[in-house]
Formats: sequence, structure tokens, C-alpha cells
Amino acid sequence: MQIPRIGVIGGGQLARMMVPPAVALGVELHVLAETEGSSAAIAATMVGDYTQFETVRDFARTVDVITFDHEHVPLSILERLEAEGISVQPPSKALAFAQNKLHMRARLAQLDLPMPAWREIHNADALDEFIAQHGGVAILKTPIGGYDGKGVRVVRSSADASDWFETIERLGGALLAEEKVSFTRELAQLSSRNPSGDFTTWPLVETRQENGVCSVVISPAPNANQTTLDHAAHIARTVSEGLDVTGVLAVEMFETTDGRLLINELAMRPHNSGHFSIEGSVTSQFEQHLRAVIDLPLGDTSATGPAAVMVNLLGVDDSNDFVRNYERAMGEHPSAKLHTYGKSARAGRKMGHVTVVAENAAAALDVAQAAAEVLRRG
Amino acid sequence: MQIPRIGVIGGGQLARMMVPPAVALGVELHVLAETEGSSAAIAATMVGDYTQFETVRDFARTVDVITFDHEHVPLSILERLEAEGISVQPPSKALAFAQNKLHMRARLAQLDLPMPAWREIHNADALDEFIAQHGGVAILKTPIGGYDGKGVRVVRSSADASDWFETIERLGGALLAEEKVSFTRELAQLSSRNPSGDFTTWPLVETRQENGVCSVVISPAPNANQTTLDHAAHIARTVSEGLDVTGVLAVEMFETTDGRLLINELAMRPHNSGHFSIEGSVTSQFEQHLRAVIDLPLGDTSATGPAAVMVNLLGVDDSNDFVRNYERAMGEHPSAKLHTYGKSARAGRKMGHVTVVAENAAAALDVAQAAAEVLRRG
Repeated sequence: MQIPRIGVIGGGQLARMMVPPAVALGVELHVLAETEGSSAAIAATMVGDYTQFETVRDFARTVDVITFDHEHVPLSILERLEAEGISVQPPSKALAFAQNKLHMRARLAQLDLPMPAWREIHNADALDEFIAQHGGVAILKTPIGGYDGKGVRVVRSSADASDWFETIERLGGALLAEEKVSFTRELAQLSSRNPSGDFTTWPLVETRQENGVCSVVISPAPNANQTTLDHAAHIARTVSEGLDVTGVLAVEMFETTDGRLLINELAMRPHNSGHFSIEGSVTSQFEQHLRAVIDLPLGDTSATGPAAVMVNLLGVDDSNDFVRNYERAMGEHPSAKLHTYGKSARAGRKMGHVTVVAENAAAALDVAQAAAEVLRRG
Repeated sequence: MQIPRIGVIGGGQLARMMVPPAVALGVELHVLAETEGSSAAIAATMVGDYTQFETVRDFARTVDVITFDHEHVPLSILERLEAEGISVQPPSKALAFAQNKLHMRARLAQLDLPMPAWREIHNADALDEFIAQHGGVAILKTPIGGYDGKGVRVVRSSADASDWFETIERLGGALLAEEKVSFTRELAQLSSRNPSGDFTTWPLVETRQENGVCSVVISPAPNANQTTLDHAAHIARTVSEGLDVTGVLAVEMFETTDGRLLINELAMRPHNSGHFSIEGSVTSQFEQHLRAVIDLPLGDTSATGPAAVMVNLLGVDDSNDFVRNYERAMGEHPSAKLHTYGKSARAGRKMGHVTVVAENAAAALDVAQAAAEVLRRG
């Protein structure tokens, strides 16, 4: 094979974290970034608007395959690229499900996969009926464009979403109502698949959220029994094959009080729940994604140690870039692996993360949390 | 602290392998490369001649610290940079020893460190006398500019080096003769030190050479007793402190048939004997070098698994870039970590390496050798 050239649309931290494995493997990484000075600036070969067909096509002509830092590229653009013979991984038919939660729910239902009760909602009456049938509360989502807690709302009456109903046409003409699940914890099953059909999973992980944003990931998920592990892997494989996903797929799930797994969200790209794999797995999600999208055999996903914990560094204000606190954090926690994304500081923004691999989850969590706290406070 | 800006002189594979930790840590890496399309091209902010003071000074003004991919920058240039207040790590006073093997031997002798018998040689008679005193054979080295077996010769008579004596003025006016040591194996002790004096070592490793070029590194060195381990670490610390080295230091040693360690060569930069640390250590030599040269606390150098083996990929001809054989190598050896350096193919050239971490050295060696063989043969 020639030196593969991989094009990533989007210059965020996911594209940035593809740089190290691209450098190791000696493959060319080209990034179409939204702006100068993006997180992935070191690999940005073009700056432009990914919603403009000509921009994306010009970029695509410089590479062998197109893949993604995010899921927001208009489907119509990807379909036109594919019609021109350009390899898009994951393909538009898979991304169609990632871009529209209603389509996703309908497809998962066809595949008989477990998920919360849900309904497509076109008006306030339908929502109030759904709420009444599900204990007086529901999770209401905009089908398109939501992430990290945006586009998601807990509602007890259609009045709680009157603004969304007023602009429902702009939101795609419908909303997605889901039952509010009683869960003991959230889990994520990361997997990857290449166009030839090779499929691998990483260990099932426990994810903890704060205000709808991932804050902690523990690998492997503590106290998960073999039935749960097998079931989660089966779900990931069914989704990956059933939706024709290529590259990395993250399936976020609820574990209910009665031990069931219910699919919450999907992401068809490297995902926050897999950042631990940079140090915690023989093959990281970022290396695996590169291998998968150019249809190379997938790497070993074994754990490098008994437990790995990742703690997100969410911006605390507009001055703390976390780098300024490296000296104390490194001095106090030499085993903590620090990652920052080269972003300007802003409260709540995903600015970086810390990973620790240790003999057990409690020890890893202690060090990762302590290092993150030093970085936050200085 | 502000975002640190680290300037690396030289665009080879060592600068290239600093890119991943720079991306993770969110520090700026600037490379002064010799040519366009260098191994470290992704981080090359300038292309120019490192033997021209103005070029190096202009580059140095864009960064907070200058460090190195190689040891060939003229000392006079580094001294002028230092006189202008620019931080050079390791400093010129340390590099003076790396650049001249005679100065190095003299300084190691002052520090009472163990090494082969040696003599500064100015003429053929002196060499013949040294040979006669050491069993009829000697290792003859040019004091300046040798690496990877270049500038090193086994001699049994001064006639074997008549060409060097004819051009001895160009070689620095003197040669270095060393006794030919009876050794059972070669070892290397990698360490790092920052300007504040923090010092860490990695496990002592066994290195195997072919035709004077490193071919295999095994970490930790099999069957090394505690006395040897302690002695090797003591040697590294004495060299590092005694020669004022900052950043990564590699001390290459012979282990003699009677169990002594004798210092062979020094390298004041990340070194081939430490490539295993990318996957085999909590903190790789490349991350540690970055931390050290900006005087941040050093990271944990613990091993990530029981054994790590690195096998070099030396060019086989002018067409095999190794990447073309990825499909088979990845398919057959999913746990092998493949690294290529983005260099055009040439016989004997260091083109990449393979690392495997496993339960024991034999298992790691088996997989790494097999993967390397597939990459070589296709």
C-alpha cells in the first residue's frame, strides 16, 4: 500500500488525539479545521466551512479517506462525496442514525435492542400523554444537533418545552421523548469495526456525568458480571453491524436497578469514554480509528494494567488553561498522565483530561482526581 | 507558567517522536529541520542550516528553550546563544563532552568511572604501542562526528588506519584508542535530569547491535543482579551530574565476562535504547525529555508490563518503506506497536521500530521479531 492519507473533518480534541498514532504509524493525517488555531492545528492542512460542499470536496481530494472529529457534517455533502467515489468512514448511511436520534431509535427498535421507552413527538398533547404514561416525567431531546447535555431536557409538562414547540420546524419537525430511566449507573461500550468487518471491543467502562457532561471514566467498570459484559459487547456488535458503522463506536448505556442495559446515546467516532485507552489499552481508540477507516487489521485492545481512570478537565474560568499548574501537578503526581487540548480557557469547556493506570480502580481514581484538582485550583 | 515553547534542532526521528508527548501535554514544539519533508516535518517551523549562527539564533528567538535531535550543532553557536541569555538544554558545557570522545574519556576518568583502557593518539607509533599493550588489537575512534558504527574501527596495526592518520588534522588532531573489551553483552542505562536536579532512571536494558547499529533492546535486561542494577544507576547519575547533563542521557556499557560494567558511549538526548519506553514505561523518554528541558518535575518511569522488547526496522532496500507491509504485520501481530519515521527507503537506514510489551522477554521478543520480519519481507 501507499502511505495512507486520512482526512479528518473537524479540528477539535478528537482530531488532535489522532495525531500521536498517525505520527507513530507514519500515516498522513490531514485536518479540515473550522478556524485557525484549532485544537488540531498541528495537523490542519485546510481551514474552512464543513457545511460548504466545495470546501469539503476540495479537502477530500487531498486524501484517501474522509473521517470525522464530530458528527455535524451535512449528510447531503457526504452523500455527494460518496457518489464521486470518495471513501467516507463511517459512511453516510451510518451517520444518518448518529445525526438524528429519532432515526437512531427507530433503527435500534428494528434490531430489537434494549432502550428506554420512547416516542416521536409532534405536538404538546402527544408529549403530555407520554409524560402521563411514564410516571409524570420524561426526557425530551431535540433529534438533531445535541451533545454534552445540550438539546436534552427533563420535562414534567409540555409547558416545560413550549419554546421548542414554537420552533419545532427548525428542530426537524419532531422531538424525541424518552422515559426517565431509574438507573444505578451509566456504562459505555467502546468498539471498532473496519470495512472488512473486523470487530473489537474495549473493556466495558463506567462513566460518571456532571451536568450532562462526562467527568470520570473507570475501566473496567467495577463489579460488572460476565452476563453484563457479554450483553454489552453483543449490543455494541449488533449496533455496529446493524447500522453499518466503521471506525470507533461508543454505545452509552444505563444500567437499571433491575440489572438491564438500556441504550442511551451512540457516537460514531472516538469518544470521551475511550480517552483512558491512550495509556490504558495496548491499542488506543485513536490508533484503532485510524486503522479501521483505512481498512487495516485492528489492534489488540487488551488492558495495559488492572485499572485505568480518566478524569476530565472542564474549564473553571477564562484564565486557567491547566498548563499553568503543571509544575505542582507533575511534582505531586508523577504517575498521572496529563493531557490538554490547546484550547483557550472557558468555564465548562472540555480543556483536557488526566489518566492514571493503577493496581485497582480506587487507587487510580484517587491519583487522577487529586491531579485534576491541583490542575483546577493551582 | 505560559504555554512552554520547546525548540528542537534537527528534524530526525527523535524530534518526530517528541511530537506525541508535546501534543498530549499541550506544549508547543518547534523544529528546525535540515530539509523539507524531514521525519519531524509535522512540527518543523523552520528549515535551515544548523551550522549557521544567524539561522539558529532566529529559530531560538521563537522558543523558550533549545534542545536537540542530534549532537552536531557547533559548540561555538550554542555558547553564543547562551551568552545571549537563551536556555540551551543540555547546556554547551555538557555537549562539549558528547561532541568529543577524548574530552568525554578524560572527564569520566576524573569522575573515577569505569571504562575500557584508552589513550589519546597523535601518531602511528603511539597507536602501535597501545595495540601491543592490549593484546594486539584496539578499537580506534575519531573523537568527533561518529555515530551508529561510523568513525569506529577495529585495528590490529596502525596501517589499518593510515587514511585517518593522513587526515588527522581534519579529524581534530587526535584519535581515541580503546582496548577491545571481552564482553558478554551490551547494556544501556537511560536516565533523565532537569535543571533543578531531579533525576530518574528507567530499567537497565540489554542492547544488541548488528554491524555497529542497534537492532534489539530488551527491558529490563534479563538476569541482571541487584549489584549490577545499582551500579548502572550510580554510573548514570554520576555522569549526569558530573557532566551537567539535562534532559535524557543514555549511557551505553559493556558487561564484561567478569561482571564489570565499562562505559562505552554517551548520548545526551533521547536514544534508540529508550524507544521501548513509549509503550513500556509510564513516562516515555520523549515526554521526559520535554519535561526535563523546561524544568518541570519528571514523570514516573515505572514499567507498564513485565517486559518490553524493541526491534529496529533498518531499511532493506530503496523501495520497502515498511508501511506497505502493514496489512500483513497488523493482521498477524495485533499486539505489536509499529512505528515508522516517514523516511524514504534506503538500505541500512533507521526507518522505524516495533515494540511489544508482554509477560516475559522471550514472548515479547518472539512477537517483535516476527512482526519486524513481516515488515521487512512483506
